[in-house]
Amino acid sequence: MANVAKKVSWSGRGEAEEERRRRDELRREAAAAEDNEQSERTPLLNGSPGGDRRAPEAPICSLLSIGHLSTVDLGEDGQEMENEHMLSDLEEIPHNEKLLSLKYESLDYDNTENQLFMEEERRINHATFRTVEIQRWVICGCIGILTGLIACFINIVVEQLAGIKYWVVKENIDKFTDSGGLSFSLLLWATLNSAFVIIGSMIVAYIEPVAAGSGIPQIKCFLNGVKIPHVVRLKTLVVKVCGVIFSVVGGLAVGKEGPMIHSGAVVAAGISQGRSTSLKRDFKIFEYFRRDTEKRDFVSAGAAAGVSAAFGAPVGGVLFSLEEGASFWNQMLTWRIFFASMISTFTLNFILSIYNKKPGDLSNPGLVNFGRFGSEENAYNIFELPIFIGMGAIGGMLGALFNQLNYWLTMFRIRYLHRRFLQVIEATLLAAVTATVSFILIYYSNDCKPLRGTAVEYPLQLFCSDGEYNSMASAFFTTPERSVRSLFHEPAGSFNPLTLGLFTVVYFFLACWTYGLTVSAGVFIPSLLIGAAWGRLFGILLSSIRGGVTWADPGKYALMGAAAQLGGIVRMTLSLTVIMVEATSNVTYGFPIMLVLMTAKLVGDYFIEGLYDIHIQLQSVPFLHWEAPVTSHSLTSREVMSTPVTCLKRMENVGKIVDILSDTSSNHNGFPVVENKHPSRLCGLILRSQLIVLLKHKVFVERANLGQTHKRLMLKDFRDAYPRFPPIQSIHVSQDERECLIDLTEFMNPSPYTVPQAASLTRVFKLFRALGLRHLVVVDSQNGVVGIVTRKDLARYRIGKEGLEELSLAQT
Amino acid sequence: MANVAKKVSWSGRGEAEEERRRRDELRREAAAAEDNEQSERTPLLNGSPGGDRRAPEAPICSLLSIGHLSTVDLGEDGQEMENEHMLSDLEEIPHNEKLLSLKYESLDYDNTENQLFMEEERRINHATFRTVEIQRWVICGCIGILTGLIACFINIVVEQLAGIKYWVVKENIDKFTDSGGLSFSLLLWATLNSAFVIIGSMIVAYIEPVAAGSGIPQIKCFLNGVKIPHVVRLKTLVVKVCGVIFSVVGGLAVGKEGPMIHSGAVVAAGISQGRSTSLKRDFKIFEYFRRDTEKRDFVSAGAAAGVSAAFGAPVGGVLFSLEEGASFWNQMLTWRIFFASMISTFTLNFILSIYNKKPGDLSNPGLVNFGRFGSEENAYNIFELPIFIGMGAIGGMLGALFNQLNYWLTMFRIRYLHRRFLQVIEATLLAAVTATVSFILIYYSNDCKPLRGTAVEYPLQLFCSDGEYNSMASAFFTTPERSVRSLFHEPAGSFNPLTLGLFTVVYFFLACWTYGLTVSAGVFIPSLLIGAAWGRLFGILLSSIRGGVTWADPGKYALMGAAAQLGGIVRMTLSLTVIMVEATSNVTYGFPIMLVLMTAKLVGDYFIEGLYDIHIQLQSVPFLHWEAPVTSHSLTSREVMSTPVTCLKRMENVGKIVDILSDTSSNHNGFPVVENKHPSRLCGLILRSQLIVLLKHKVFVERANLGQTHKRLMLKDFRDAYPRFPPIQSIHVSQDERECLIDLTEFMNPSPYTVPQAASLTRVFKLFRALGLRHLVVVDSQNGVVGIVTRKDLARYRIGKEGLEELSLAQT
Repeated sequence: MANVAKKVSWSGRGEAEEERRRRDELRREAAAAEDNEQSERTPLLNGSPGGDRRAPEAPICSLLSIGHLSTVDLGEDGQEMENEHMLSDLEEIPHNEKLLSLKYESLDYDNTENQLFMEEERRINHATFRTVEIQRWVICGCIGILTGLIACFINIVVEQLAGIKYWVVKENIDKFTDSGGLSFSLLLWATLNSAFVIIGSMIVAYIEPVAAGSGIPQIKCFLNGVKIPHVVRLKTLVVKVCGVIFSVVGGLAVGKEGPMIHSGAVVAAGISQGRSTSLKRDFKIFEYFRRDTEKRDFVSAGAAAGVSAAFGAPVGGVLFSLEEGASFWNQMLTWRIFFASMISTFTLNFILSIYNKKPGDLSNPGLVNFGRFGSEENAYNIFELPIFIGMGAIGGMLGALFNQLNYWLTMFRIRYLHRRFLQVIEATLLAAVTATVSFILIYYSNDCKPLRGTAVEYPLQLFCSDGEYNSMASAFFTTPERSVRSLFHEPAGSFNPLTLGLFTVVYFFLACWTYGLTVSAGVFIPSLLIGAAWGRLFGILLSSIRGGVTWADPGKYALMGAAAQLGGIVRMTLSLTVIMVEATSNVTYGFPIMLVLMTAKLVGDYFIEGLYDIHIQLQSVPFLHWEAPVTSHSLTSREVMSTPVTCLKRMENVGKIVDILSDTSSNHNGFPVVENKHPSRLCGLILRSQLIVLLKHKVFVERANLGQTHKRLMLKDFRDAYPRFPPIQSIHVSQDERECLIDLTEFMNPSPYTVPQAASLTRVFKLFRALGLRHLVVVDSQNGVVGIVTRKDLARYRIGKEGLEELSLAQT
Repeated sequence: MANVAKKVSWSGRGEAEEERRRRDELRREAAAAEDNEQSERTPLLNGSPGGDRRAPEAPICSLLSIGHLSTVDLGEDGQEMENEHMLSDLEEIPHNEKLLSLKYESLDYDNTENQLFMEEERRINHATFRTVEIQRWVICGCIGILTGLIACFINIVVEQLAGIKYWVVKENIDKFTDSGGLSFSLLLWATLNSAFVIIGSMIVAYIEPVAAGSGIPQIKCFLNGVKIPHVVRLKTLVVKVCGVIFSVVGGLAVGKEGPMIHSGAVVAAGISQGRSTSLKRDFKIFEYFRRDTEKRDFVSAGAAAGVSAAFGAPVGGVLFSLEEGASFWNQMLTWRIFFASMISTFTLNFILSIYNKKPGDLSNPGLVNFGRFGSEENAYNIFELPIFIGMGAIGGMLGALFNQLNYWLTMFRIRYLHRRFLQVIEATLLAAVTATVSFILIYYSNDCKPLRGTAVEYPLQLFCSDGEYNSMASAFFTTPERSVRSLFHEPAGSFNPLTLGLFTVVYFFLACWTYGLTVSAGVFIPSLLIGAAWGRLFGILLSSIRGGVTWADPGKYALMGAAAQLGGIVRMTLSLTVIMVEATSNVTYGFPIMLVLMTAKLVGDYFIEGLYDIHIQLQSVPFLHWEAPVTSHSLTSREVMSTPVTCLKRMENVGKIVDILSDTSSNHNGFPVVENKHPSRLCGLILRSQLIVLLKHKVFVERANLGQTHKRLMLKDFRDAYPRFPPIQSIHVSQDERECLIDLTEFMNPSPYTVPQAASLTRVFKLFRALGLRHLVVVDSQNGVVGIVTRKDLARYRIGKEGLEELSLAQT
């Protein structure tokens, strides 16, 4: 497992790598990513990452001495460079797990309060701020409406297409049941499924790989402050929506709920910026919001709206956003997020009520509908609590098993299935396998139940007598959402224990195989389905042991099992409890659901991390958790920081700036600015993106007439360039211009946050995380620059099996 | 209104002041508080507060030059001092509203990471950290259980006592209705009520004044980081619980829900510290949690558990805690808070189910029970949304009126009703008035309804015919919770419009008069009751206008009215929505409730602030809102900070330290530590409390043998002294010892957070608020100390009618 070379990529880089590989099949190690997006290209280093980057005893500020820099992880923004010759040296890269990638850029949630910004803010009066505030509300409303509409669209299209598919197959099966041509029915079913899945998989693999999966890990990363390329693009949204439709209709063991969270986030990012780079349209509105801070706030709202639309859980949506990105909590923001969530679920509910020909019936708030658990008939007893806790433990163990299997599978995929056509083939194959396995199970099942009184949508008679249907088919021969609902609500006796047992086992492995496939689909519903099946089985066994006790309602146990299984897989806490409560419209079950989820998380965490965290880690994303590792007090910022630092002077030579920005071996992204006369004394911080804009607009001062700039830059110039700043190579600077100076005073952030060298990692972490920083300058007792701390320096430390361990950094 | 001299005090100082006043009735202005709690005593200054505290152009670090300091607000901790002679000078203090009090100490949520602490943390291994984590969970569980038990106790006692009271009065009324001695019945009722209230009021006024009111503003302040003296004491809890029982049974227009939040907080603070100072018992457990950071986390959990027990709203409880103290959000913490909430509502539910002889029926999760709104029969229509929004606007206006009246009333109380016996008399009088007004309304009401089919608890027949009851009595002649429930759920036609109208008006004024009385009681239920009454009236009018439409269910409109009125008064947002949803067990109404609350807040905020904020402001508490005022970008830390600063050297003279700490005119609480040789260069920060402990243990170094300390201090010595550090006067330092030195290196925080002088107020505010700081050192470009920013420096700025305004600081 130690030689994993290439990862299935979220980031759209897989695409570029694939092209390169076609040119040179032998060079398949390491990822020199050539990106579509200029500003996100990443250079590759062949230094030993994570080595020799400790602060020397006498730290220095190496003014422009960048030549000697090792892989200091300041550089996130890359430039276009032809460094393929370096790749061949890199035959091996270390194991993924112990690695932190340098290719991800950070988001900057700290406003750069430079002079330009302060001047603008001072010009704005109270009334204008109110207008801005109103705009924020309007945007949140739009996010809610659009997210709701997308959810409606997915829901209606899936329902129509799946209806047609199941109708065709059912007709066919009914026709051939007696005449004995069922193998033809199987073929038809498998072909239909594969046809849908092949489309869904191809658009994901060839058009936008970042749309694969549920998108929740990506959104988690975004809210955490890591920029995953392409993740909030319009193209991604389109591929995601189409992809999820095809994969659900294709009968895979997937849900359409997870992707809604991603969709909501894209909608939010799009609307709030008032333009679409994919469509090349700038509507010239909401320009005030064109910075990471504001964009992140709206993306939180979008993610919440997505959860809300998916599960009919507006409060759960808000809590989801808080859990994932909440170092930036704020009452008004939360209130707006809640507004977006509410609008989203309301829109969905309203449109679906019209679609279902019951206009005004607002009781279907989400994509998924678990049906109502009336609390009177389903109340639980005190003595059931230990049973629920036991179920939680089972869920935790099964979840851990699921995650472990999926982890191995993902490693396998990373190693052997990185070509796109292989990915498409795998998806298609799985679609066929799913149909076949289901068919076989249905075929050999003798579980016939009377038809009357059930709500089964497509009852398959098969070999049952008239007026009966095949119970296994009601679990397999429908969309997973409906299966969950029938497991929750069908009266006792609708399923045989054997049916449930077989279904659990088969669906467990199918779902496990499916997650991580190159299709866009979620894992929520499959997890719930597995859990509901074994939960119901558990309930049946319980009542058979105790001799038909009345309290052991199988639906209740199905619900607890579903919660346990889902909790064991994703390990979400508060938000999941609230989502479950809201989705079942039952407040009474809150306490047992919480107990179940808590146990599942506790037990699961003992074995392996949550599914999303595993995938985040496999991507080597520098993800910051809530707190620094508990035993990290012994580390100080002196040991954590990167040093030496490339500093710029307040009046800096254009040529030097160009050289620094062009230097592909360092690729820094933020530069402390120091006084002209005291070249170690910190006076500000400037970002690569700002320097790029300065160079592009040629805000130069000739040495001859100091104090006169050629032109005056506005904040607008920076906003227009956001977020895709041009690469340094696209800016031409003449030899004469190289001799000029740039006065950084006006553009740098004059009050960057700093920490002394003696501050503990815990302290640095807290500051960094609470304020959402990107760069934190470490200073000595005289305010001299000693080092700089970035996200990777903090994300590197984690608690391993033998206490604190440190990940290596690499340009994978 | 400009000469308000003395405030009804939360802080337990009123008590001490009262004693003083008995000695000297003439000196009633200004508050030289002599406190029971040594460390909280506050000296008085007669300087002009807020004046001459701007930073000079060339800032200096005045080493020990404290003689010239004006009222720099570093000093929160006071010492015992006889400064009464200064009081007579202070004949007038400025208007409360434009004032920020210096008497409140801040909590410090930033861990002091000094050498002692770091050594301890480094000694602790991973397993020990896990034990600590388990302890946290255990404590949260205990908090939940105890809070639930307290809620049960209050509920059962109130129900029993109120039952007896209403039974006695009803018997009496029934007896005298025909014989015409109803004035005797009135007398009986009024006397009973007054008797209860006089007890409730006396224990609050004479034993623990901080137990007055709902306690929500105090807990808001605590979570915000302001230490309100006595607020989390055991004595306060006892008084609170007894007080609320007496005031509810006394028939005042109050609820028993608000005080639960305060009770939960006290329980949390008590359990988590493992000792009770009131009982003088130290259980020697949980010593690790004896610091502000940990204590605050547990108090959050306690407050959430209180909300949860009060309303059966565990998620609402968590959100309440988040809304009030959430700059310190953290996933595991929130999960623990949720656990405490769940346990609390579960305990309550379980005990009450046994009490109600329905063991195992877990459908009564809260103190208040709004009854279940089934959603099928009560669904709303799209076209009702504008109507709801209109109701929200009405609620906002009525709420603003309520708050304005209560504000004037509170000002009146501050001026004229500051004696305790007057407060008791007012409460008793109000109890009699409430009974009388209710009786008159019932007497003159002709609203008779048939008895059968209603759930009215104490149906008064009065002049109705047999088999009928007086409908007005069903609103007045019962506890407010039951009235709310009957307004929500009684079938259409149970109340006449006139009854509802009269009830609304009368109850509005009664509730408004009651809030701020010297009894412990909440405003939630009265607000809901007012709103439910006019909401139901609204519904009735609506259906009469539209000619008996079926959708205008009066119960639904009562609910919306209740939400609107409560929202208009307290202006809570997300948490209130969730509380309402959870309390009604109805997810479908979430969207309209949110719209109503949003409108109510928007409209209300246009006129006046929320009730809790008004009371916080009237107490001049330095409360930090979520963000700095929007137009405060123009201010920098140079203008905001206090300067000059009293600094200490790393090796400081004992005599000087004693002098500084004893200096009553400055009364600082945190001191930047500077290098011995560069007396302006910051190297640490030390707190008054730490210095006190150092002096007490005489950790001195004789000049002759430098480097040898007499004894070695442990972290335990600091923890044992927490939170009531002795005053400097209680520590005797001999003349010889004054010549010794103290080496602060080991005890100071070596890496205090700093900001440069140019940082904007917004930026400083964000840092301060996000990290929960108490002191923030402002440094120049060479890391020299220039000033210090504390809570009051930031809380002083707010948006007034004419833009940014600045409050003055005063030692009131």
